[in-house]
Amino acid sequence: MRTGSFEERSLLEQAVQAAVSGASFTPFTEGLAGSVDRRRGAAHSAGAVFRSMLGQDFCLGQPGARQGVGTESSPYGISLGVRYPRSEPGELVGAAVRAMAGWRAAGPRRRAELAVEVLCRLHDRSHEIAHALHHTTGQAYATAHRAGSLHAQDRGLEAVAHALAASTRTPADMYGERLAERGGPRQMDVPLGMDGTCTVVPRGVSLLIGCPDFPTWNGYPGLFASLVTGNPLIVKPHPRAVLPLALTVQVARDVLRKAGHDPNVVTLAAEKPGEQLAPRFATDPEVRVIDFTGSVRFGEWLHRNARQASVYATPIGANTVLMDSTDGYRRMLRELALSLSLCSGQSCTAPQNILVPSGGIRTDEGRKTIGRFSVDLSRAVKRLLAEPRRAAGILGAIGSDRIRTSLAHAAGCGVVVHASSPVAHPDHPAADIRTPLIVRLEAHDEQVYAREWAGPVSFVIATESTSHSLDIFRRTARRHGGQFATVHSTDPLVLGAVEIAALDAGVHLSENLAGSVFMDQSAVYGDFCAAEVSPGAHTALADPSFITGRFRLVQARRPAVRVHDISAAEA
Amino acid sequence: MRTGSFEERSLLEQAVQAAVSGASFTPFTEGLAGSVDRRRGAAHSAGAVFRSMLGQDFCLGQPGARQGVGTESSPYGISLGVRYPRSEPGELVGAAVRAMAGWRAAGPRRRAELAVEVLCRLHDRSHEIAHALHHTTGQAYATAHRAGSLHAQDRGLEAVAHALAASTRTPADMYGERLAERGGPRQMDVPLGMDGTCTVVPRGVSLLIGCPDFPTWNGYPGLFASLVTGNPLIVKPHPRAVLPLALTVQVARDVLRKAGHDPNVVTLAAEKPGEQLAPRFATDPEVRVIDFTGSVRFGEWLHRNARQASVYATPIGANTVLMDSTDGYRRMLRELALSLSLCSGQSCTAPQNILVPSGGIRTDEGRKTIGRFSVDLSRAVKRLLAEPRRAAGILGAIGSDRIRTSLAHAAGCGVVVHASSPVAHPDHPAADIRTPLIVRLEAHDEQVYAREWAGPVSFVIATESTSHSLDIFRRTARRHGGQFATVHSTDPLVLGAVEIAALDAGVHLSENLAGSVFMDQSAVYGDFCAAEVSPGAHTALADPSFITGRFRLVQARRPAVRVHDISAAEA
Repeated sequence: MRTGSFEERSLLEQAVQAAVSGASFTPFTEGLAGSVDRRRGAAHSAGAVFRSMLGQDFCLGQPGARQGVGTESSPYGISLGVRYPRSEPGELVGAAVRAMAGWRAAGPRRRAELAVEVLCRLHDRSHEIAHALHHTTGQAYATAHRAGSLHAQDRGLEAVAHALAASTRTPADMYGERLAERGGPRQMDVPLGMDGTCTVVPRGVSLLIGCPDFPTWNGYPGLFASLVTGNPLIVKPHPRAVLPLALTVQVARDVLRKAGHDPNVVTLAAEKPGEQLAPRFATDPEVRVIDFTGSVRFGEWLHRNARQASVYATPIGANTVLMDSTDGYRRMLRELALSLSLCSGQSCTAPQNILVPSGGIRTDEGRKTIGRFSVDLSRAVKRLLAEPRRAAGILGAIGSDRIRTSLAHAAGCGVVVHASSPVAHPDHPAADIRTPLIVRLEAHDEQVYAREWAGPVSFVIATESTSHSLDIFRRTARRHGGQFATVHSTDPLVLGAVEIAALDAGVHLSENLAGSVFMDQSAVYGDFCAAEVSPGAHTALADPSFITGRFRLVQARRPAVRVHDISAAEA
Repeated sequence: MRTGSFEERSLLEQAVQAAVSGASFTPFTEGLAGSVDRRRGAAHSAGAVFRSMLGQDFCLGQPGARQGVGTESSPYGISLGVRYPRSEPGELVGAAVRAMAGWRAAGPRRRAELAVEVLCRLHDRSHEIAHALHHTTGQAYATAHRAGSLHAQDRGLEAVAHALAASTRTPADMYGERLAERGGPRQMDVPLGMDGTCTVVPRGVSLLIGCPDFPTWNGYPGLFASLVTGNPLIVKPHPRAVLPLALTVQVARDVLRKAGHDPNVVTLAAEKPGEQLAPRFATDPEVRVIDFTGSVRFGEWLHRNARQASVYATPIGANTVLMDSTDGYRRMLRELALSLSLCSGQSCTAPQNILVPSGGIRTDEGRKTIGRFSVDLSRAVKRLLAEPRRAAGILGAIGSDRIRTSLAHAAGCGVVVHASSPVAHPDHPAADIRTPLIVRLEAHDEQVYAREWAGPVSFVIATESTSHSLDIFRRTARRHGGQFATVHSTDPLVLGAVEIAALDAGVHLSENLAGSVFMDQSAVYGDFCAAEVSPGAHTALADPSFITGRFRLVQARRPAVRVHDISAAEA
């Protein structure tokens, strides 16, 4: 790692090198040497800084901001009451359009440098943002700090590096001699040489529609990719999780202002309760890039209705686990129990459908029937979550009625293997914390399991055989989406067949690993998360066009100076 | 250039190097040293080979081909009568889907090597394809050979190189140690290292909707980009210009078959007269990539209805010339006359709207009023096309009633500056050859000039000033598309202002060059053609996502072998 002072340029160079070579580079997670002291101080004061924001107006200095709107409540039961400036959508779009020419003119390298400065400033405020995430998403504090601050910053940095590499891949200055030779009629003077310039032209205004559960982790890649490719950005947070993105916007505006740029390159679009501004912004003709993580349904709505824009909609699908055989039964159960529990099953790698041949699976402890497996999994969950403080640290709190409804509904769909039960948080008695629900289904219950269920809901599904499991996986993933699959098998033939099925379905595959690798996925490309070829999944973070769809290259050319001199002399 | 034998691998390496460095590389236009003798023979025999195909069944060996369909007629009046196999769309899509897994498994490098082999084989048959283009599109033979064979091959090669570079940018094999550190609970064994593979997964079946005027030049970039990124391809030619693409498909299938691949990776979808198969193919759920060059209207239809696919629709828009001042009046007039005439105004750089301040323009021959300029331009056209054989060589023949209608209609829209008149072709008395029509309009006639007119139709439009011209250019290009603009000015301030306006409109700009650079645009990226940020222009050849939208990267990972050994030992 770097030693010495906070050298943002060097950070950018290293990130670009890593992006080009495909190497892993996670400086924020590993800790920036120069900022350790500052951060240590920050960790202590962050709680106080966070509390000082509560019940106050959040200041951004945005155009047309009149009223303050507050829509957040803490799943841990404390009162938040932060009021955000609300501007009319047209005012924010207008301000973004006016900021565009200056931002475009800054060029990719300058924009990337400023983006890295924003990331470093966000890094300094990691603990404040972690508090904001903890009290809006319900994530445990450690999770919020690691995934929502540090990993999100590394993902942002990776997006900056890829955006800079992609937008400087074609040289800005060109010289060509193409006109010298002409196949058609030759009767006229033609220039022998041409100078050309090639400019990265952003698509237009970029809209980030924030999600309620991982607003920074899901949001930063698109946010920084759009900024570096020259698109001014409007951040429309989810009404339940405004503060983490509001702090991000505040830092970005501050960096822009101090660097002499129009701060309206980045604005926040807070909304009144139930106002539903996302569709209004998404269909504005000036909005040309949209990032969204969430329901398949709204993703499809965006594709259908926001036709003027490049839509990067990452749908939340149902992830599959294929059980065939294992040589580490206990460990596999522990890891699976953790995957089902982490962040109340809201992480993007949380498994939902566990396909188990009804004849059972071969393990290092002998053959386990599906009934035995179900009982053992339930016990592993109970063991993991036995101690309330530790359980709260894994599960986090539930802030959404959607999850409560999902739990209640799913329990009626089959035989309950593990019932969801409340956990009392030692410090926050009002927090709603629930253990995972596991329900046993049959293969023919496809109308139940072939869609995403919110929260810690999973199904143990009895299939005829591993090859039947494969058919179900391939079909449901291709039709209904899904981001990750896990297979447990000691048989190379099975692993090979699952690999092919995962390619057919366009789903990332973990073999004999726990599904809960989410916590360590800090990078967009190095550690693809949410890549999709499945239907409904029109975009992906692992998709190179995630960057390239945000800009075009436009060329201007003119006679090279020496040629121009000659023609002037002729005249 | 290369000497020695036909080294396709070396050609591929050089092309990739050029693609990465942004250098110009046009080996087919410059002539492959190893193939000169073969081509010389081919040039002599190509006419006979072409004639031998007339009135015959065109053999492709495609699945489900029952009837022969023929829809072509030569604009030069000779009888063609080639009958192509017609299969049901479902049969072709099914065959493409079945070919997909094998083609995906071949990997990017092998696919690129085969694509280069196809290009070299097409290069050997350049003269045959030129005959086919000449007698279907109506292009003059020299134009057809140079643009439709050689330049198209260079564009195809550039697409191969960019596709290979883009799909191998992320290493196929990865090793990571991300799981070693875990922010959450630490109670369990986690693998220390992981092996990963990253696979280029094609989107699905790719559809090329051929255009009637430049089927190979417009078609090859998408065709080869799709092939190299692993998408099986269905080529649906325009019913008026089937043979050039049928020959291309025949060569590709032959190369695939000989290399042991399923030839149905590339098939031809010929259609009966008036059958309109394009919408049926475009909305097939298996079709995931669509390339189309043509009307703004059908491009928008595709975006609205083929939502399952990456749609690369390059609309034909109205190109603008801004007249301000020049130090080479005569030369400028000659070049402009050529631009208006070439290929009957069907080339993608053909100017349509010539914006001239009504106060006139400053030139090296004194101030020229708009009336004087119009007369001089008309004379330049007459001089260029005075001799019938030369005129026929520049204009080519008109094969479409759409152009005849366009000419008739446009003549009634304003004062005719230069009337379109017939030219008698010395060898082909039946050929319909027409000189360009130039009509004088006022700035307020926007409903006339703000759309694309087919064929050699252009307008001299009187504006209040150069800055008024700029406003009109910016507005019409942003609203109605357009691919190229040209400005003639000796004033650096004007040139600077036009450059900014072109970036705003997302249109490529030529400064003090003739618009007719089409003939020498052999490369997709090096010589961007048809790049667009304008509305209705959702794609572009200059758009990096032209390649990246055709595939996704899908990851599989597993414990690294040494880690797996350890866990096996634990069990």
